[in-house]
Order: sequence, then C-alpha cells, then structure tokens
Amino acid sequence: MVTIAVDAMGGDLGPRVAFRACRALMKNDPDVEVILPLEESLHAAARKILGKYQPRTRLVSCGEHVRMDDTPRKALKERSDSSMSVCLALHASGEADGVLSIGNTGALLVLARKHLGALHGVDRPALATQLPTKGRPLLMMDLGANICMTSEQLLQLGFLAAAWYRAGGNEQPRVALLNIGTEPGKGTDTIKAAGALFDDQLGSLYAGFREGDRLFDGDLDAVICDGYSGNITLKTTEGLIEWLLDMMGSELRSSLALRWFYPLWKATMRRIDRQVSPARHGGAMLLGIAGNVAKTHGKSDERSFRYALEYMVRQLRTRDYQSMEAEFLKITG
Amino acid sequence: MVTIAVDAMGGDLGPRVAFRACRALMKNDPDVEVILPLEESLHAAARKILGKYQPRTRLVSCGEHVRMDDTPRKALKERSDSSMSVCLALHASGEADGVLSIGNTGALLVLARKHLGALHGVDRPALATQLPTKGRPLLMMDLGANICMTSEQLLQLGFLAAAWYRAGGNEQPRVALLNIGTEPGKGTDTIKAAGALFDDQLGSLYAGFREGDRLFDGDLDAVICDGYSGNITLKTTEGLIEWLLDMMGSELRSSLALRWFYPLWKATMRRIDRQVSPARHGGAMLLGIAGNVAKTHGKSDERSFRYALEYMVRQLRTRDYQSMEAEFLKITG
Repeated sequence: MVTIAVDAMGGDLGPRVAFRACRALMKNDPDVEVILPLEESLHAAARKILGKYQPRTRLVSCGEHVRMDDTPRKALKERSDSSMSVCLALHASGEADGVLSIGNTGALLVLARKHLGALHGVDRPALATQLPTKGRPLLMMDLGANICMTSEQLLQLGFLAAAWYRAGGNEQPRVALLNIGTEPGKGTDTIKAAGALFDDQLGSLYAGFREGDRLFDGDLDAVICDGYSGNITLKTTEGLIEWLLDMMGSELRSSLALRWFYPLWKATMRRIDRQVSPARHGGAMLLGIAGNVAKTHGKSDERSFRYALEYMVRQLRTRDYQSMEAEFLKITG
Repeated sequence: MVTIAVDAMGGDLGPRVAFRACRALMKNDPDVEVILPLEESLHAAARKILGKYQPRTRLVSCGEHVRMDDTPRKALKERSDSSMSVCLALHASGEADGVLSIGNTGALLVLARKHLGALHGVDRPALATQLPTKGRPLLMMDLGANICMTSEQLLQLGFLAAAWYRAGGNEQPRVALLNIGTEPGKGTDTIKAAGALFDDQLGSLYAGFREGDRLFDGDLDAVICDGYSGNITLKTTEGLIEWLLDMMGSELRSSLALRWFYPLWKATMRRIDRQVSPARHGGAMLLGIAGNVAKTHGKSDERSFRYALEYMVRQLRTRDYQSMEAEFLKITG
C-alpha cells in the first residue's frame, strides 16, 4: 500500500479538484490510500466527494493554509499548522510515503526543508520535471527553486539527476547543460565553468551543452539549468503547446469540410495532446529533499492533479529518496 | 528603389540558397535590387541563378568569408575583406540601404559596430525578432548579443523597443520584462532592479513582468530579456514548433481514414504553419546599430531567406535607423 499525503489547499480551482483527483486515483488503484489535512469546514465536502473510498481516506484537521502570496518566511513562521506543514510532518513521521501539494512553491521548498531536511551533500534542493520530447522524457531542473546558481551548485544538480535515473535503473543517463551554443566558449561564465566541472566529474554521463531548439530531440535524459532559465523555458513550452493545440483544434473545426469528420481528427488531436501535454508528466518533484515531495501546478484541474498523483505513485514504486541518496553518494563519493 | 547588400556566405546550406531567395524577391518586387559580395569562384553560379534579374543585381568581388567558428576578434582582425565586411561597408557608404547576413552572429555584431557604429546613447546593440503569437507579433530582445546585462542596459533595450515601434507609427507600444513571476519581488536582483527602472522611465509603456506561459497571448508589443534567456526562449520556441507541426502532420497521415482527406487537412496544416513558423518573421534585427542590419538563421533554406529579405524590405519602407534614433532620443531625452 502506498500512502500519499495530499495538500489540497491553494490551487486556483479550489480543493474539490484535489478531492476528485484522489477519488479517481483510488478508483483505478486499489493499493493507494490518501491522507488529506483540511480545515474543518471542508471535511464534509471531502467526505461527500470521496464517498465509497472513505476506508482508504484519512481526513486530518489543520489550521489556516499557506496563501499563494505568503512569503517563504511567513510560511515558516505562521503556517506550522497549515495543510502543507501537516502533510510534510506526516511524511517525516513515516505515516505518509510522499507528499503532493498544489500550494505555494516557495513555501513548500522551505517547509519541506524544515520538516525533512536535504539529502546528505546537497546544498540546494531543486525543482525538476519531465518534459515530453520526440523520444524519451527529459528531466529538467532547476525550474525556479534557485534563481541564481554557482557552477558547483549546477554540478550538484547534475549529480542529483544522474542519481535519480540510476535509482530508477538507468545506469547511463545522459545529462546536458542548457546553453546558448554547443561550443565550450559559449554562455555565461558560470555555465562555462559548469561545463568544465560536468566534463570532469560526470565523465561519460555528460552530454555537453544543449540549445533550446534541440531540447525535444529525445536523445537526452536530463538537462540542467538555473531556476531562472529553467522556469522561463518550461513555462514557454507550456504556453506554446497550449496555443498550438488550441489553434489546431479551431483550424480543423473552421474547415467546413473537415467538420464532418470530427470523430476522425478528434481522436488524432487527443493522441497528440496525450503525447505533448506537460500535465501528463506529473508536475514538479523536489529533488535533493530527504523525502518524496512533489508539486502540481496551481492552475491544475482534476486531470492534471490526477496525473500528478499517479506519477507520484509510480515514482514511489520504482524509487524513493533513500535509493536516490545512495546513488548520489556513490556518484559523488 | 530599395538596395539590399546580401551576405550569402556561411549558411549551412551554402550560398545558392541566398541566390535563389534574391531571385524570388526581385521577381515579386520590381523596386528592389541586391548587391552580392562574393568570392570570384561563386560569380558564375550566382549569375546563372539570378539570370534575368542581372540588371538589378550587382556582384562584387571579395576575399575569404567569415567562418562559423571565427571568434569576433578574428573576424575583426582578419576578415576585413569578407563578404560580411564588404556588405557593411557598402551600407556605410550609402550604396546599400541595409544588410542581410546569413553568417556568424558574433562577427556580424562586431563588424557592424565597426563599420556603422551604435546609435547615440546605446551601449549595447542587441538582437531582436518578432515572435508569432495569438495576436500581434511580439518583439523579443536581446536574443544572444549580450549574455549578461545590467538593469540599466535592459532599460536601454526597453527604450530601443519602444523607439522601434514609434518609428513604425505605434505610439503606445506595451513593453514587458521577461521574468519567472509577475509580482515585484520575483526574479534575479538585476530583473527586480530593471522592473523598478522600467516602471519609472517607461511609464505608461511598461506592461510589467511577463512569464513564459503568457508570451503568446498577443497583448504585448515587446518583451525585454538578457541574451542568455532570450536565446534559450527563442530556440525552445523554434524547436517545439517544429516538433509539434511534424507530429501533427504525421499523426494525421497515420490515420487510415484521414489519409483520404489529405487535401483538406493539408490546407489547414499550411495555414497553421504560416501563422506560427518563426521563419515567416524574418530572422533577427540588430537594433541599436546606426544602420539597418539583419541576420537570418544559419540553417535558413530558400524560403526562410526570402522571408528575411522581404521582411527587411518592408522594414526599410516603413522605418529606418534614423527615424528610430530620433524616437530613441525623444524617449530618453
């Protein structure tokens, strides 16, 4: 049985999205249970939606939740009884195997660090996600936890990415650095220095610099960058995919002739959507934390939330932070 | 008559791509002529392709061209007789109204600065392009000319973007800063400081911070960023659009039923391609140079090269660097 503590508070669409996603998860997977820390006023709504899955649902009471505009400092000082803090405490005590939150990312980072700590040897835990590509998914990190990073901190992310893959059974992941060119002289001083460090320390796992136009080639396993460029790249990808899929749908609909064949191309559209939608890929993981913590987008709907839950369950069944830490120590040691 | 000096050397597909693009341009537009500086060995090939447009074509002899791996320093020292240098000199002397190059970007920047200088009050000329969006095109700069920038240099780019629009008749362009959030506290120290400067100095033209997922909303005129994030964002956009269009085509083709309706959806695909293909949007302009200089992608094919030529001709008919400089001085003065 896998037990997930779900922080349902703080999403744009309200907590019901999370309740429905939990229901869908438990419906499809008999070996999962969820713990939901909620303010008292929401217990009735949760019970109603989770209906027959109540034997595998634990509702826990908590205080006011972390607001989207809370600073990390405020979250640390004033939200110790929030749904987010309670989830992390449940994971720290071993009652939950992992935490999925839809809340404030900055708060999640500091609260996760407070409750769970960082892996031995990691200065700066980071946010990572798997991007869809033409081939295998691409683990991209950092996505905004650390805006400015030194070359040594980027190297730690390279180690973390490699450890994550090795803990999952891929012994030879290919790890690249995001840059504006592929030659050694390209990029900021930090990136140039990081390139030399990666080359020296990651050896055969290092796949060199990678430019934006070849991120989707599908031949890499991970790409490392600072939180500023990672965040912008990820969000640009999300915005562009959404726009192109919308445009494609409306262009096909606007063709008088094609309108008759809606069922035909509808299936095609759905297949494309499944391949590229970042929502399929389960939100962002906090790598480098001594725990299994992930974040789903604040604007997640039921579907995205469910994907994130399913992704987390799959992750927990193949690797956990302990196995990742062991690999991390092997690589860095 | 508009006269363009074309640097055809250094592209991935060889100079014939440029010759064919020049031919297509002159075929469609009787009021354009081109000057092509070329090594002697290429004159015959150019004459053959440009055939009946020879009255509007001037072939000029030059020395060895700038190589893609030449450093800017080497270009400055050793490529003073290259096709790129000769094009820029022809523009400086007034024989050409503008320069389009397919060559090495770093070399083009330093050689343009040497031959033409920067606009009065501009420290760092930058690369700009117009991205396709749901609405009006979005001028994005810098795209890689300046990897690291101070907040004051970012502000200069903001002024340049505003001046570019005003010189083209848009008095109230909306100029944003690329960032990882929209609240004032988000981003690097440089971006935060730039936000305050933009707010203070651009006044009603400043549209605040903009995140990657809302770049394509079509409600902005320009987005300013440093060359590192701009380059990565642009290239990610290019790579993703290419992948998605390929995928749409092959998904539609792979449907047995839809294959029969190829002519129907082929037209739809072409329409989408026209709307989103960055190639339609004419390569990158060097803004802040005292001249009209643009760069087309090294991997441009005939079509992309022709779009870049057409775009430059349109630009030259609506605004030139002198009118832009006048607007720049008005805004900054």
